[in-house]
Amino acid sequence: MTRVPLEKKVLSENDRIARRLRERFRAHGVLCLNLISSPGAGKTSLLERTLEGFAPEERVAVLTGDIQTDNDARRLARYGFPVRQITTGGTCHLEAAMIERALEGWGSEAVDLLFIENVGNLVCPASYDLGEAAKIVLLSVTEGDDKPLKYPAIFFRSALLVLNKVDLLPYVPFDVAAVRQNARRINPAIEILEVSCTTGEGLEGWRRWLALQREAVRKQAELGATLA
Amino acid sequence: MTRVPLEKKVLSENDRIARRLRERFRAHGVLCLNLISSPGAGKTSLLERTLEGFAPEERVAVLTGDIQTDNDARRLARYGFPVRQITTGGTCHLEAAMIERALEGWGSEAVDLLFIENVGNLVCPASYDLGEAAKIVLLSVTEGDDKPLKYPAIFFRSALLVLNKVDLLPYVPFDVAAVRQNARRINPAIEILEVSCTTGEGLEGWRRWLALQREAVRKQAELGATLA
Repeated sequence: MTRVPLEKKVLSENDRIARRLRERFRAHGVLCLNLISSPGAGKTSLLERTLEGFAPEERVAVLTGDIQTDNDARRLARYGFPVRQITTGGTCHLEAAMIERALEGWGSEAVDLLFIENVGNLVCPASYDLGEAAKIVLLSVTEGDDKPLKYPAIFFRSALLVLNKVDLLPYVPFDVAAVRQNARRINPAIEILEVSCTTGEGLEGWRRWLALQREAVRKQAELGATLA
Repeated sequence: MTRVPLEKKVLSENDRIARRLRERFRAHGVLCLNLISSPGAGKTSLLERTLEGFAPEERVAVLTGDIQTDNDARRLARYGFPVRQITTGGTCHLEAAMIERALEGWGSEAVDLLFIENVGNLVCPASYDLGEAAKIVLLSVTEGDDKPLKYPAIFFRSALLVLNKVDLLPYVPFDVAAVRQNARRINPAIEILEVSCTTGEGLEGWRRWLALQREAVRKQAELGATLA
């Protein structure tokens, strides 16, 4: 395969930029989360539900990636927090350089929670570190409970699986116990939340998870400042 | 971007093999269809419903691509037709060379309808010609009616859009008229079928479409033989 060496080179260039981003986020106490899923699993809906729950003074921002259109940025901008669209123009994933470019002039100081909504794709985004503290994989119950086994990389690399659209469970053949088992076969440490962005079910668990991660990053930044 | 030249080279090598496959399919009167969608939109279910409707003497075969597992091949093998799994081991799409390799020793003469079920990914498979007569894009109504605009390449390159899971329409916010309009904005010639692989609704339209394509390929092959 002639493609492997260059892919490696591109990835390591990406890793270099991602490392720089990660240091910058850590230094400023920014929690950066990279949301990954198939198209239509509910990344934008989860962000809508999340943003609408925040007080206006929260220092939250979103970068949202799509191949074409700025639909998602327009949906998310309604909540009053800074949102920037990254249109990849064909590329099937976000890369660290796109994040660095999108953050230019923003000043990480102004933000302590940054969501990155990746391109809708359960495969390729798994390979690209964006400097995030954690990857979060969303899976809709309409997609089938076998997906962790068929697309293992993203389940292996994610800290959290958000199982979305549980309001549709009565209408689809989907075994929640099986998907939990399949996800943990790939990644025994993965946390799993069941939510519905339509009915709001389970979202308090998501908000708790988020608050816990923010608290951890804040403490790390304080400790870093003390030790410096 | 250092990646562009090599990507071009890989693609043109792929195109060369795809051309060879296409000539072979045409010469033998094989209708080859490349099914593409997000994970869980229903490619395997559509093939299950299709295969169960065929008489045992039909000369149908399936190549099914996945990153990991042979779940789909096992699901499809139950119908008694030849099925081969292509496990890409990480690659996010099928390539023509994988098809050529999987067909080794099969003899295209034994088949006049070949389904290729691509890796679940609405982005990357759109760029790889597999020698098929037509690409077919599946979209589940749970994925949202904006998807043709956000993932235009595959809608642009497909002859047919199969809108699946219409049995879930009462439970999801999805506007069928909007998705039709969005798909035709990208590709005015795209045909659109609404089906449910769960209830069987709309599948007679799919079978008619299939019969028409097979008839066209058969006539082309006859004409080719006459002119040769």
